[in-house]
Amino acid sequence: MEYIKSTKNEKVKLWKKLLSKKFRDQTGTYLIEGEHLILEALKTNEVVEIMIQEDKTISNAWSLNHEKISVFTISEEISQHISDTKSPQGIFAVCKKRNTKVDFTKHARFLLMDGVQDPGNIGTIIRTADAAGVDVVILGEGSGDVYNPKVIRSAQGSHFHLTIESGNLSNWVNQIKQNEVPLYGTALEKAVDFQSITPAKSFALVVGNEGSGVSREILEKTDQNLYIPIYGQSESLNVSIATGILLYHLRKSI
Amino acid sequence: MEYIKSTKNEKVKLWKKLLSKKFRDQTGTYLIEGEHLILEALKTNEVVEIMIQEDKTISNAWSLNHEKISVFTISEEISQHISDTKSPQGIFAVCKKRNTKVDFTKHARFLLMDGVQDPGNIGTIIRTADAAGVDVVILGEGSGDVYNPKVIRSAQGSHFHLTIESGNLSNWVNQIKQNEVPLYGTALEKAVDFQSITPAKSFALVVGNEGSGVSREILEKTDQNLYIPIYGQSESLNVSIATGILLYHLRKSI
Repeated sequence: MEYIKSTKNEKVKLWKKLLSKKFRDQTGTYLIEGEHLILEALKTNEVVEIMIQEDKTISNAWSLNHEKISVFTISEEISQHISDTKSPQGIFAVCKKRNTKVDFTKHARFLLMDGVQDPGNIGTIIRTADAAGVDVVILGEGSGDVYNPKVIRSAQGSHFHLTIESGNLSNWVNQIKQNEVPLYGTALEKAVDFQSITPAKSFALVVGNEGSGVSREILEKTDQNLYIPIYGQSESLNVSIATGILLYHLRKSI
Repeated sequence: MEYIKSTKNEKVKLWKKLLSKKFRDQTGTYLIEGEHLILEALKTNEVVEIMIQEDKTISNAWSLNHEKISVFTISEEISQHISDTKSPQGIFAVCKKRNTKVDFTKHARFLLMDGVQDPGNIGTIIRTADAAGVDVVILGEGSGDVYNPKVIRSAQGSHFHLTIESGNLSNWVNQIKQNEVPLYGTALEKAVDFQSITPAKSFALVVGNEGSGVSREILEKTDQNLYIPIYGQSESLNVSIATGILLYHLRKSI
C-alpha cells in the first residue's frame, strides 16, 4: 500500500483534476467519496484506485483483494485537497465511467432528463428513479454531468444500480418510440392530469429544466403530456418532487 | 427614503443579526431576500422594512405606499453583508413572524415535521405541501427553524400561503386526534403500503428526521403508519420526495 503525503504528488494532481468534467471525459474516470458509495461501487468491478486517509479505518465489509485495484494511504491534507466538500470523509475511489447498455427486450421503465441543471436535483432524481424501479436513466445533452461529485453524493449509490446513458435526447426518444414504450412528457399546456393515466408495465417519462421545463421539440414527440395539479398557491413543484410523484403513479401496483 | 452606506450603521447591524435564530426569536422578525418573496410577503401586511440596493430598480408591481413600511436604500457592500448568499439579489425585507392560527372548523389537511433538520428539505416540504393543498404545516421542536434564510428560499413564498405552527408535536397530535382528523405516520415497520389508503377530505401526515424517521412516541399515536415501497435497490427516499408522493396520494381526486 503506497503512502502519499504531499499534494504535489503527480497522482494527487490527477485526482484533483477529476473535479472537472473535462478531465473526467478525457480519462473516462471519476472520483467518489465515502464508505457507502465505495461499497456500492465495489460490486460493479469499476473501481480502479482506492485512497484512504491515514487515520481512517475501513470496515470488515470491504474486500480489497481485487487484483486490479490499487490502494493508497493519503494524508488529511490530500483529503482536503481532492474533495469538493468542507468535511471530507477521508475515503475515496477512482472509478471507470459506467459502461452499461440499454436492452429493450429487458428494460421496461425509462426516465429522461431534458436540461435538468442542478446537481442536487439530478442526483435526487436518480435516487428516486432507482427506488421507483426505473431501469434506465437518460440525461439529454443540456443536462448536467452525471459524474459531478454533488450528483453522485445526492444519488447515494443509485449510479451503481441503474443503466445510465447520456446523449441526444431526440435520438433516444425515437428509439423508445420504435420500441413501442408509452412516452410521457411533463408540461403545463396541452397536458392531462397525471392521475388520469393508467399505470402500465412499461413507460418512459421525460422531465425538464428547472426554469423552462421540457423543450417543445421533445413535447411534440410524446404520446401524452402530463401535469401535476397545484391545489394550493405555490406556482410549481421542484423537478425532483414532481418526478417522484409521477414515477410512483406510473409504477403503481404493477 | 433613507440612504445607508456603511456596514457600521446600527440598522445594518440589526439586519445582519437576523441571520441568527436567537435574534429572530428575540425580535419576532426575520429577513427575506428577492423580489418574488417580497411581493408575496407584501400581501400579508407583515412587512416592516424594505431595503433596496442603490443600483437596483423595482418593478411596477410593487406598492410601497404602506404607511407602516420603512424603505431604505443600501450600498452593495451592505447587501453582501446582510445576505447569506454569495450573489445577493439586492432587495430585502424585514417581516414580522407570522401570526396564524389553526382553525379545526376550516383547516382539513395537516403536515407535521418531526425532527426534519435540513433547511433545504424543510423549505421544499413547505412548498410541496402548499402545492398539494395542505392547510397547516407544523414543525416539531426538534425540527429546523422555519425562518432560516435557506428554508425561506427553498419554500419560494409558500410561507405566506399556509398556516405554519411550531411547538411540541405530541400536543399537536393530541389536538388533531381530538378533532377526529385521520393521522398517518411514516415508518418502515408496522406500516402499510401508502397505496392501500383511500384518500379522504381530511388528513394529517407526519414525516420524520432524515436519518431516524418519525419518533416512536409519535408513531404509537397515529391511526395508521405508511411506507412507500422501494421497487429498486436504493435504500430510501429523500424525505421531501416521500412527502410529495404521500401528499399527492392522500389528496387525490377529492
